[in-house]
Amino acid sequence: MKLNKNSETTILIVGLGLLGGSYAKALKKKGYTVIAIEKRQSAIDYALENEIIDEGMSTVDRAFISRASLVVFALYPKVFLRWIDEFASLFKAGVILTDVTGVKSCIVDEVQSKLPDGVEFIAAHPMAGREVYGVENSDDRIFQNANFIVVPTEKNTQEGIDTCKELGRELGFSDISVLSAKKHDEMIAFLSQLTHCIAVSLMCASDDDGIVHYTGDSFRDLTRIARINEDMWTELFMLNRSPLLYEMENFSKQFERLYSALKDGDEETMKEMMKLSTRRRALFDKKGNDKK
Amino acid sequence: MKLNKNSETTILIVGLGLLGGSYAKALKKKGYTVIAIEKRQSAIDYALENEIIDEGMSTVDRAFISRASLVVFALYPKVFLRWIDEFASLFKAGVILTDVTGVKSCIVDEVQSKLPDGVEFIAAHPMAGREVYGVENSDDRIFQNANFIVVPTEKNTQEGIDTCKELGRELGFSDISVLSAKKHDEMIAFLSQLTHCIAVSLMCASDDDGIVHYTGDSFRDLTRIARINEDMWTELFMLNRSPLLYEMENFSKQFERLYSALKDGDEETMKEMMKLSTRRRALFDKKGNDKK
Repeated sequence: MKLNKNSETTILIVGLGLLGGSYAKALKKKGYTVIAIEKRQSAIDYALENEIIDEGMSTVDRAFISRASLVVFALYPKVFLRWIDEFASLFKAGVILTDVTGVKSCIVDEVQSKLPDGVEFIAAHPMAGREVYGVENSDDRIFQNANFIVVPTEKNTQEGIDTCKELGRELGFSDISVLSAKKHDEMIAFLSQLTHCIAVSLMCASDDDGIVHYTGDSFRDLTRIARINEDMWTELFMLNRSPLLYEMENFSKQFERLYSALKDGDEETMKEMMKLSTRRRALFDKKGNDKK
Repeated sequence: MKLNKNSETTILIVGLGLLGGSYAKALKKKGYTVIAIEKRQSAIDYALENEIIDEGMSTVDRAFISRASLVVFALYPKVFLRWIDEFASLFKAGVILTDVTGVKSCIVDEVQSKLPDGVEFIAAHPMAGREVYGVENSDDRIFQNANFIVVPTEKNTQEGIDTCKELGRELGFSDISVLSAKKHDEMIAFLSQLTHCIAVSLMCASDDDGIVHYTGDSFRDLTRIARINEDMWTELFMLNRSPLLYEMENFSKQFERLYSALKDGDEETMKEMMKLSTRRRALFDKKGNDKK
């Protein structure tokens, strides 16, 4: 299947939350027909009123589903797996399924194993989000300057992979790459999940509300992600437990090294860590995404 | 002394780095005569060429110093203390001294004890900065939406405190407050120094350069401050060792609590921490400084 930029290509979004809604907005602007399944009727009503989707249903219907040549699952991981368990048989050969799930190893093989012949699931992780929820807060600008990662297995076809990459481009992602599920989950444990663990721990570490008056940019930046949906993130952490525990241990070792250096007055070690940190962080600046 | 917005009021900046240069820019724009002492002649040349200061000297001269009614020390903490040791006797009664030092307990009493009669030192901490250095990078816009903290002792006069507050307003700080040295150092240990320790440890925790391709905003925001001047920050950490070690321990306890919860599959504790984190972080949003 190739995506065609016209209303003949119908894309079905399952789950109209922040990400599903942002996908819908971006794809409808590009000229696709966008339909949605979302159990919350008020989300569908909102999306219709604001022309974010062309049609929506709050139940799962074979005829409705069969209109789509591409289906995007924007659900919590476990809800996604249950959905596939229940409704995978409704898909017809030729359709391509993709997702937005933030963890992959626990998802991809299981979903692929449950699909009818000729139905291809090609996993993707759009590394974009906000600290707010729901289609009411959806915003397709979050994809600009963001990374879109395609996560194929040996079961995927080149056509499926290409379609998924094209989807990433159509959504407006600036960087589209391909990773294995294992590599993806290791990377996400470090770059995303560990940072959320740190931000949450930091916010839990002081009960002095007065500090808000003295907060500088560094603390604000570091804790922006401390506003966190506890159900979704607990699920994501649990589904990626082993790589995340490993990264938490790695971080703790470095943090304890710095603590001991400070306690012992070992300025050489402190400076050595700061120099390494500065050198490594400089690599990230080259991407030109820094706000300052 | 009252600050008068005209060229009759001369302000001396000692140390033309990023902060000293930014002070100079802001104050010259307001109409003050700004003079500077800076040992690096090229910094003085740059500041003169770019009309950041009116006059500058690379040596310490009694006549030059005596022209200022307000002196701002923008030096590393230990350099500042040595400067006071060597040159405090050059100041005449009536002059007000202030500083930009990021730690206070180790500075304020010592400086105040070494000044001639009638010379008042009123400590201040402008909570603003950038990850770049030198007068060449100075920028008075960094004071907007930032906090200016005045740190008086029982030796300070109301006039001195008021002058320092006025300086903060003239520089363009949006929030000016008063804290004791002890309270300031505890607050800064948590809000600024601990966050830098975390960012540095995080950058030291992975040697995989490839991750830069997959980095999202959360990691970028969290590690922005990981580009760090190792000499300055090691000095600041060592000078505030006890409060910082305490805050590092507090953070570690919370981080280990989250680690254990994840390891044990204790989802209730994970969610409880995330809810507390979200609730506390929401307080910070009310300030309206968030970038998203």
